[in-house]
Amino acid sequence: MPPGDFEVRDHALLVAGTRLAEIAAARGTPLFAYDGRLMARRVAALRAVMPDGLHLHYAIKANPMPEVIAHLARLVDGLDVASGGELDRALASQTAPARISFAGPGKTDAELTAAASAGVTVNLESAGEMRRLAAIGAALGRRPRVAVRVNPLFETRQSGMRMGGGAKPFGVDEEQVPALLAELAGLPLDFAGFHIFAGSQVLGGDILIDCLRSTVELALRLAEAAPSPVRYVNLGGGFGIPYFPGETPLDLARVGAALTEMLIPARQALPQAVFAIELGRYLVGEAGVYVSRIVDRKVSRGKTFLVTDGGLHHHLALSGNFGQVIRKNYPVAIDGGIGRAPEETVDVVGCLCTPLDRLGDNVGLPRADVGDLFIVFQSGAYGPSASPGAFLGHAAPVEVFLD
Amino acid sequence: MPPGDFEVRDHALLVAGTRLAEIAAARGTPLFAYDGRLMARRVAALRAVMPDGLHLHYAIKANPMPEVIAHLARLVDGLDVASGGELDRALASQTAPARISFAGPGKTDAELTAAASAGVTVNLESAGEMRRLAAIGAALGRRPRVAVRVNPLFETRQSGMRMGGGAKPFGVDEEQVPALLAELAGLPLDFAGFHIFAGSQVLGGDILIDCLRSTVELALRLAEAAPSPVRYVNLGGGFGIPYFPGETPLDLARVGAALTEMLIPARQALPQAVFAIELGRYLVGEAGVYVSRIVDRKVSRGKTFLVTDGGLHHHLALSGNFGQVIRKNYPVAIDGGIGRAPEETVDVVGCLCTPLDRLGDNVGLPRADVGDLFIVFQSGAYGPSASPGAFLGHAAPVEVFLD
Repeated sequence: MPPGDFEVRDHALLVAGTRLAEIAAARGTPLFAYDGRLMARRVAALRAVMPDGLHLHYAIKANPMPEVIAHLARLVDGLDVASGGELDRALASQTAPARISFAGPGKTDAELTAAASAGVTVNLESAGEMRRLAAIGAALGRRPRVAVRVNPLFETRQSGMRMGGGAKPFGVDEEQVPALLAELAGLPLDFAGFHIFAGSQVLGGDILIDCLRSTVELALRLAEAAPSPVRYVNLGGGFGIPYFPGETPLDLARVGAALTEMLIPARQALPQAVFAIELGRYLVGEAGVYVSRIVDRKVSRGKTFLVTDGGLHHHLALSGNFGQVIRKNYPVAIDGGIGRAPEETVDVVGCLCTPLDRLGDNVGLPRADVGDLFIVFQSGAYGPSASPGAFLGHAAPVEVFLD
Repeated sequence: MPPGDFEVRDHALLVAGTRLAEIAAARGTPLFAYDGRLMARRVAALRAVMPDGLHLHYAIKANPMPEVIAHLARLVDGLDVASGGELDRALASQTAPARISFAGPGKTDAELTAAASAGVTVNLESAGEMRRLAAIGAALGRRPRVAVRVNPLFETRQSGMRMGGGAKPFGVDEEQVPALLAELAGLPLDFAGFHIFAGSQVLGGDILIDCLRSTVELALRLAEAAPSPVRYVNLGGGFGIPYFPGETPLDLARVGAALTEMLIPARQALPQAVFAIELGRYLVGEAGVYVSRIVDRKVSRGKTFLVTDGGLHHHLALSGNFGQVIRKNYPVAIDGGIGRAPEETVDVVGCLCTPLDRLGDNVGLPRADVGDLFIVFQSGAYGPSASPGAFLGHAAPVEVFLD
């Protein structure tokens, strides 16, 4: 069975009700197919267990395809962007600027100008950035809305990617925040609140709950130094999805119940504050597949290789070359053979002339031949936008959004 | 001093005689600047020590900027491509099709058709590919020129990236080659010779010489099974450049002398054969710099961070996230401070909202501030084309070729 909630009929995959083989025949391969219904289902699952009134944000870096942004913009309460380019895409989705926030440690003057002009919330990463933004706002005759991004002292245990704790280029060290807020009070900036993002890709419910608790407590402590009532607290995200054998989905109900409890006193302390969580991968990662077509089948010294027309130029994380120390297999299948017993153990590689281009190592699959479709699940986030698309001069993948 | 042969004046970098600061002011940052004079000097250094008549090929995957391809096409004897897209670029450089060869384990029918139509040499990766190409050639009424890519039994010790030995998706196992040649003899294909590529990024002269010797010997052995006289032997490449502390440049003179000696008997055995080596990184890697501008300077818990407008979306290998297990620092400098004594130890990071975006860890630099240019050397190969350019929606880097 495929992971997630994709529908399978006669051992073949359906994407939002349409057979993958039809999509591939009509649109070509390699392709990414995204199922908008699964994204909506994920948002609904969050709404069902998260505290009433908690804002859900979509961090568009996870999948910046315009159709995906537009779809999620209708379902969530805000969008988070990480560059001027993403800001343009967020504004193009008709999302109100007040519902967009912009984080990133190296914002240029041009990006700060665009953000101030549009009226989005800028998550301040440093005192220097705060001063540059204040000057830009003054020149524009505007009072930019800001949140202070905080680098907490606590670390998130077992986070896939730690972004808090220790010396970090992200945000302002929590111990420096009161001094920064004192300076901010004298600048022509509209202080809204805090952005505290401690990690990502966390699968352990207890760890995530600890992290959220530390984050809420920190926001309450820092609020005491705020120049005006806190209206906005972005608690970050970090909700992980299972990629590899042995990983299990996050226990969302437990996380939701714990957060609901935490927010009761927090809302009493900060009655004007909207609390938000920021999710990227968790909203889209399990709603997408990467599909390539087998172009060669060969045996080298006893090992069978399936060579596809895809590769790491479309899906770098799949090849194990984007921040991973050891490559692990994503869940994969042969279309038409989903759920059938494995008949052979093969290596699946992409079309690139490099040994890095591995799509599956020693995977058990039903017999597959030239022309068959090779499916990689858990591919809705950090696919083409996080891959070296121009590598070796191959064509970009097709991206298909279906709902 | 910068590595390689870049000229420095008043502690500032010149690229082909022009001050980097001027280029950056005129063209913007982040940018890659490539020095065509250094590429020409490298080709001349090879010609000076390599055997007379040895063909030098440029593997355009290393840097597919059209100006770089056009420049090198005038200096070398052939171009090697790895996709239909690269084939288009090679043909656009006015290089004669007979001087272009096409390798890659997952060539599609469309790519084989384009190669056969253009008349370039196809490096065959498998029996299946051979049969597909023969059928495509027959349908076109052409007899495609082919070389058999061989997966040798020997391995290249200490290669940066092994592409021969063991079970591999690249080429045809050497022990299967005689049977493949017997089948090839009956197909409408024009057999030219062999392509044997055993590794890349080799810095040890002895290792490279051993590899070339094994390669020449293998070509001679396989030639005995050839259906017609061998006219072409591509010995591969593998010539490395120093990136990291402690690495020293390849001893080119020794390699050239050894190869000259090897080719004397080889040419007697294969009198019709042209021998070629295929170089990518070695021709362009040291002729390029990656330049970003510092946009923030901040201290977090005792550590000073310089944040630039660049990042791994332009230069993935620099961040240590493209096939490397451990990140090491490239040689770097502050423009205007080249050759000055270090004044502080800093971490240099890019503008991306991810802890993977590291440009320099604990590097000693003269004091640098917002607005200064941060230079990364050894950046002429596998830069933008090998990086996730769309990651987080930032703009593409400027690329400048100067000669």
